[in-house]
Amino acid sequence: MQTQRTTPSRSAKRAHYEAETIYSILDEALYCTISYAVDGQPWSLPTAFAREDDRLLIHGSVGSHFIREVEKGIPVCISVTLLDGLVLAKSGFSHSVNYRSVVVFATAEKVEAYDEKVNALVLITNKLIPNRWPDLRKETESEIRKTTVLAFSLEEASAKIRTGDPKDEPEDANLPIWSGVIPLETVRLAAIPDASSTALPLPHYLRTD
Amino acid sequence: MQTQRTTPSRSAKRAHYEAETIYSILDEALYCTISYAVDGQPWSLPTAFAREDDRLLIHGSVGSHFIREVEKGIPVCISVTLLDGLVLAKSGFSHSVNYRSVVVFATAEKVEAYDEKVNALVLITNKLIPNRWPDLRKETESEIRKTTVLAFSLEEASAKIRTGDPKDEPEDANLPIWSGVIPLETVRLAAIPDASSTALPLPHYLRTD
Repeated sequence: MQTQRTTPSRSAKRAHYEAETIYSILDEALYCTISYAVDGQPWSLPTAFAREDDRLLIHGSVGSHFIREVEKGIPVCISVTLLDGLVLAKSGFSHSVNYRSVVVFATAEKVEAYDEKVNALVLITNKLIPNRWPDLRKETESEIRKTTVLAFSLEEASAKIRTGDPKDEPEDANLPIWSGVIPLETVRLAAIPDASSTALPLPHYLRTD
Repeated sequence: MQTQRTTPSRSAKRAHYEAETIYSILDEALYCTISYAVDGQPWSLPTAFAREDDRLLIHGSVGSHFIREVEKGIPVCISVTLLDGLVLAKSGFSHSVNYRSVVVFATAEKVEAYDEKVNALVLITNKLIPNRWPDLRKETESEIRKTTVLAFSLEEASAKIRTGDPKDEPEDANLPIWSGVIPLETVRLAAIPDASSTALPLPHYLRTD
């Protein structure tokens, strides 16, 4: 949703407010950075998350300083960044990056129901490693009790996207300086078993061949 | 430097305060996320940066809302995250990620001297694309005037690092569930010239072969 907070002061043409665009960026990102402030002092922390419909879900230890502050329902800002490429222009000034980013302004709602907490942990785990959860040793009540799950509405979220070639000044366009894009990609390398798993078959969802 | 703010409430054994460790993470990261608060409302923004000795340098448009807030010298929190791997345990509870992260608490100092501003832009450009600057059309006074450069001391910075295999509960160790690590890597793909550069040779610093 476009609000004063989600309207950028610069490059407004890069701003997007459609849910589909925002969801696709959130669904691809492996972590988010959550910021909050206490007495004017900002704090921020990278953390795993998942999206369920119009909510973003995180989890953490019930004892964590971060969780205990944020669960109070103070305002947070959640930032997600996918860096897609380096944009090389003919001047330093026109250098840029291609990216897809999302910012969310929200307050935490604590997820209390046991099944909903488990569901959030399933979503967070399967977001990072699709199909993982069914293989795991079943969760225990103690583990769920020790875990806080927080949900954040995506109502006040916006995306910013830059794609494509550099935009050099017209007077620079014919300079014999190489310009273009270096695409960046996050890749998953071959899975490395720990000592307990060298004789176990690699699960189908971890195969890269 | 270890201060109350840089001492984690959880997993204290993952915390590091040596300059070398902090610098190496900052030097590898392609962007940082800067957070600040106005009237208790946190804001955060991903941005390019460079490190020079014990300072972190960023740049932005003189007109940007973000720059104009931060240049006032309000407290900021700078977060850098390198996600090195997904850590798959035999229980959901013991799943984790391998990462190297840095958090910096600081306030901005505006870099005013012309040559120091140019130097910061050289460092930021060459951090993302080593050796790039000497190839570029020379900066103009107008470009430098339109750009704000801010410096942040790294005095109050700390790193958190997790490496290695999953740590399952002893009673789970013999379960026939595959456990181990999926390494993650950010790769630069082959450079793509824009229309002006298809006939120009690829600079040596962009070659990947």
